[in-house]
Amino acid sequence: MLGIFISLLLSTTATALWPKPRLVTNGNVRVVLNPHSYGFKAVTQAIQLDEAFNRYKSIFFPHATDPVPNPSDTELVVDVLDVTTTLAMDVDESYVLDVHLDGSTIIAAKTVWGALHGLETMSQLVDFNFTTGQYSVSGLPVHIEDRPRFTHRGLLIDSGRHFEPVVHVKALLDSMSFAKLNVLHWHLTEDQSFPIASRVSPELATKGAYSNFEQYTLADIKDVVHHAWLRGIRVIPEFDMPGHTSSWRKSHPELFAEGCLTESSRGAFDPAKNQTFDFLEAVLKDWSSVFPDMFLHLGSDEVPGNCWNNSKDLAWMKTMGFSNSSDVFDYFVNRIANISSKLNRQTTFWDEAFLSAKPPKDAVIQNWHDASLMKQIVDAGYRAIYSNGWYLDGLSSTWDHMYVLDPTTNISADKAHLVLGGEGCMWGETVDPSDLEFTIWPRLAAIAERLWSDASVTKSTAEAEPRLEVFRCQLLTRGVPSGVVGGPGRGSPPGPGSCTQHGKTQDVEEMFV
Amino acid sequence: MLGIFISLLLSTTATALWPKPRLVTNGNVRVVLNPHSYGFKAVTQAIQLDEAFNRYKSIFFPHATDPVPNPSDTELVVDVLDVTTTLAMDVDESYVLDVHLDGSTIIAAKTVWGALHGLETMSQLVDFNFTTGQYSVSGLPVHIEDRPRFTHRGLLIDSGRHFEPVVHVKALLDSMSFAKLNVLHWHLTEDQSFPIASRVSPELATKGAYSNFEQYTLADIKDVVHHAWLRGIRVIPEFDMPGHTSSWRKSHPELFAEGCLTESSRGAFDPAKNQTFDFLEAVLKDWSSVFPDMFLHLGSDEVPGNCWNNSKDLAWMKTMGFSNSSDVFDYFVNRIANISSKLNRQTTFWDEAFLSAKPPKDAVIQNWHDASLMKQIVDAGYRAIYSNGWYLDGLSSTWDHMYVLDPTTNISADKAHLVLGGEGCMWGETVDPSDLEFTIWPRLAAIAERLWSDASVTKSTAEAEPRLEVFRCQLLTRGVPSGVVGGPGRGSPPGPGSCTQHGKTQDVEEMFV
Repeated sequence: MLGIFISLLLSTTATALWPKPRLVTNGNVRVVLNPHSYGFKAVTQAIQLDEAFNRYKSIFFPHATDPVPNPSDTELVVDVLDVTTTLAMDVDESYVLDVHLDGSTIIAAKTVWGALHGLETMSQLVDFNFTTGQYSVSGLPVHIEDRPRFTHRGLLIDSGRHFEPVVHVKALLDSMSFAKLNVLHWHLTEDQSFPIASRVSPELATKGAYSNFEQYTLADIKDVVHHAWLRGIRVIPEFDMPGHTSSWRKSHPELFAEGCLTESSRGAFDPAKNQTFDFLEAVLKDWSSVFPDMFLHLGSDEVPGNCWNNSKDLAWMKTMGFSNSSDVFDYFVNRIANISSKLNRQTTFWDEAFLSAKPPKDAVIQNWHDASLMKQIVDAGYRAIYSNGWYLDGLSSTWDHMYVLDPTTNISADKAHLVLGGEGCMWGETVDPSDLEFTIWPRLAAIAERLWSDASVTKSTAEAEPRLEVFRCQLLTRGVPSGVVGGPGRGSPPGPGSCTQHGKTQDVEEMFV
Repeated sequence: MLGIFISLLLSTTATALWPKPRLVTNGNVRVVLNPHSYGFKAVTQAIQLDEAFNRYKSIFFPHATDPVPNPSDTELVVDVLDVTTTLAMDVDESYVLDVHLDGSTIIAAKTVWGALHGLETMSQLVDFNFTTGQYSVSGLPVHIEDRPRFTHRGLLIDSGRHFEPVVHVKALLDSMSFAKLNVLHWHLTEDQSFPIASRVSPELATKGAYSNFEQYTLADIKDVVHHAWLRGIRVIPEFDMPGHTSSWRKSHPELFAEGCLTESSRGAFDPAKNQTFDFLEAVLKDWSSVFPDMFLHLGSDEVPGNCWNNSKDLAWMKTMGFSNSSDVFDYFVNRIANISSKLNRQTTFWDEAFLSAKPPKDAVIQNWHDASLMKQIVDAGYRAIYSNGWYLDGLSSTWDHMYVLDPTTNISADKAHLVLGGEGCMWGETVDPSDLEFTIWPRLAAIAERLWSDASVTKSTAEAEPRLEVFRCQLLTRGVPSGVVGGPGRGSPPGPGSCTQHGKTQDVEEMFV
């Protein structure tokens, strides 16, 4: 125990963890950790653990301190049952964390993905005391058993309305890992711009991107996907279609319905041509080589069905026996779902595909229109992702509005397994790299806790608020530009104050000479 | 020339450089650079160059690309006359940059500080073509001769009203180097909080900081100062006094004038006690060990002179022959300037010290009250720093308002040498790490060009605007959350659009099924 100082004190350990673990028990011993000799060790080596140890060393111990004489050998050991488990939906993300009386720590997990969550939890237990210059953990022995409530805990970003350079996407992935989120839903293409390279059709980005600054090479995509994988985050690309595709039209007007060929109109793919689906299959196959996840999001929201109201398409509709644009939409949805299947991918659609079409039963439906739709979607046998009320571009929605929403509201118990989880959606109309993280945080943290923590431990916004304030201070310390707790989205602090002061200011009387 | 492709094309080289160099000549040859074999080489080794080569390698070549067969040996050679020159005011920051027809590049400079600016300029010349996947430089041969107009080109940050964690201060220093700024004026202490450790009086921060998240250890300060030094940026600390000191009062009420001892009042040091100056000398001496710069800013703005309107101080004033609070202020200013001298530091004061007192003639006066004061300050023989109109917390001031201001307006030629330069001031009332960089950029870039570029090359805001838009896109690509060009401070983009679109949005008609 050389070099380790143990003291008894009233414990506050684990009261500030975010998201809140399922089970925490603790004592009241405090142990000083020596940053100069603290060791991270994996029972079985894995690149994800090596890289995480490097990251968390500076997160555990952010301040330089003087060397401690006679350093102890306190160790954090990560014991993973199978380090080769593929990152995928429904993967085991559980972990058990034990901090013993001497500070030695064991994180036991079935997969590296669970172990990474254990490291994050441990990092939130380490305190620095500015008076003594010492790091410590309190409340020993600590025993935590934890696992996520939902398998799909995501954030949508929209790189079509404003481009997000690679460095910003990576920073966002870092911050997501702090909240134990595990899905980046990357809405890549939009009416306004087409930022991703394609080997099948390079002109898509050449003509469709905003500028030479605002494109991703396929190597960039691989780089982001690897960065995410190291942090246990799956990347699900979205190529929105048949609407929200005007930027594709700049290079491929031949694929578009003749009703919407002018620059100012929102375009829609023309389902009357096999060429359209041949092209989509070719580009999606190309992109599937850089997006390994089993899921592919093919949008299908806000379809401008009026585009199909032209003589050619109307004639084709007649031969197909279609009576309206909903029939055309249903045809389109099923054809692209079929392409997805050929690429060994399962398809996610926005809820219009459920409302106005009949997608295959293995599709996942993402709900945004109306919370009551969730019940209809799962009652119809589809798996569902909840995003209703979790639109981060709704700046007036504060964290507590988002916190109290629950993906399983009104869902019957026998259908609950069809609710995969949810996503906060950061639509890009008024966010670009300048205000992206500022707008996302800390409200995304509220969503993250709802998706991770068991309903039995998330009591109320009043219980959550002081923990969220601490989490926000941690985000700032780690370099994440999180907004204040309690303000609207993207709310600047109203006056001088601490990172813990939500909306309140600390000021003194102003009197000058 | 193996592996290098040269083509002739209409050159646009160097038209987008920010800040604009003094002299640019160029031809019309384009050369492809091979990121896999491009070499950075220093004729004489220096740690600042080694670290800069590492940084700029990823700034020159941000996208991964396939290996090029038969790689060439294109080299960038940095030739510095004296790599040991100390970073200080008036240090030579000039450089000459030559990019030859084969792409080989020489940066010649008298000091590493000049060479670093040359590397930044070169980084702005490298383009990536998404269609070909190639990096290139155009307009060869390029010849640039450059040096700053002013020696003091700074940014003030205010860590007393909101704490800025080390990682954010470092990110800010990175971004400053892109605009060739060379002074971080670190306003550390304020009425509201006291975030910096002291070995002389640890209780200053223990009692004065907002929270346990919001303090700097002295090791943190050294870390920041080293990070800045590697980038050619001097760090000048400000310990504002005798006012703006209420946070000191929490641990040391005995040093405060009796007129202002209540929590709600702004405090002022008591100049009637030698104890006050003994204490200030001891703490400033301690801090001088971590702030090596020759300048020390001792504030002296907005003094609550009413604090001295109490019986003890009034009695003391009588014995000193002082008739009013201005006399007391003058006495205070000269005593702390004397402490500064004993610590081998020159003192900077806000312009109240010039208006209401008579500081020693070697003091530097920072102008903020009124632009016309600049002339009075230098005519009185003081050196001056200009900040009037460059308050970044003034959100309605757009970049072009700041761009047209000039520190030497109405200054006579024989006094121009007394104008050291200027600073953008990011006061911290409504900025914390969430919106700090977002509020600072791109407006600080306008100030940076004014301070770096010769008046003969900075023609107009119309000429500057497209260059500033490109610089903003570069900031975003490098991870800096810069706001849009043309908006107010901290202006979110008003709608979908490119990084080059200031205030304008690109949108299409909205029509849904």
